[in-house]
Amino acid sequence: MTLPKTTIKRIMKQYTNLNISQEAVDEICKMLEEIIKVTTEVAEKNAKKEGRKTIKARDIKNCDDERLKKRILELCERTDKMPILIKEMLNVITSELE
Amino acid sequence: MTLPKTTIKRIMKQYTNLNISQEAVDEICKMLEEIIKVTTEVAEKNAKKEGRKTIKARDIKNCDDERLKKRILELCERTDKMPILIKEMLNVITSELE
Repeated sequence: MTLPKTTIKRIMKQYTNLNISQEAVDEICKMLEEIIKVTTEVAEKNAKKEGRKTIKARDIKNCDDERLKKRILELCERTDKMPILIKEMLNVITSELE
Repeated sequence: MTLPKTTIKRIMKQYTNLNISQEAVDEICKMLEEIIKVTTEVAEKNAKKEGRKTIKARDIKNCDDERLKKRILELCERTDKMPILIKEMLNVITSELE
């Protein structure tokens, strides 16, 4: 079961006058399917936490935020710039000494 | 033009055995439509930057990251906890003095 590409393309066309390549439609569909997957899994966890057997709207509402949080934490772990940024921040703070 | 709710529900069912309420399906569709809107607008900007009249796959690829970045910046501006966090960090650093 996959997303109907023609419909997705038509929705996209509501927001742009440019042409849209087939590869671009494939790409957004891939992205949306991944989002449906992650959202459903997180929503299921939310529902189970409350002992429910049905996923409700409120289980979905927080999913995008949780996805965002997960991505930020991943980015934090991937970057090696944190110590540099902290030093830079301390430089700015201590420059008040001068 | 909106997303086909039955299809979206069927895709969700691939990832959970729980029941899914109609409101939950409505909620995820609303979220996905918003993502299609924002993604298309950012992709259009990316294509125009390169003087193209066609949105290509690579215009889509960076959109989710840009959406993420925008949301993080919004969160930063919304929170009033930054000064507290910075002080907390300085406390941790200076605790090395003891």
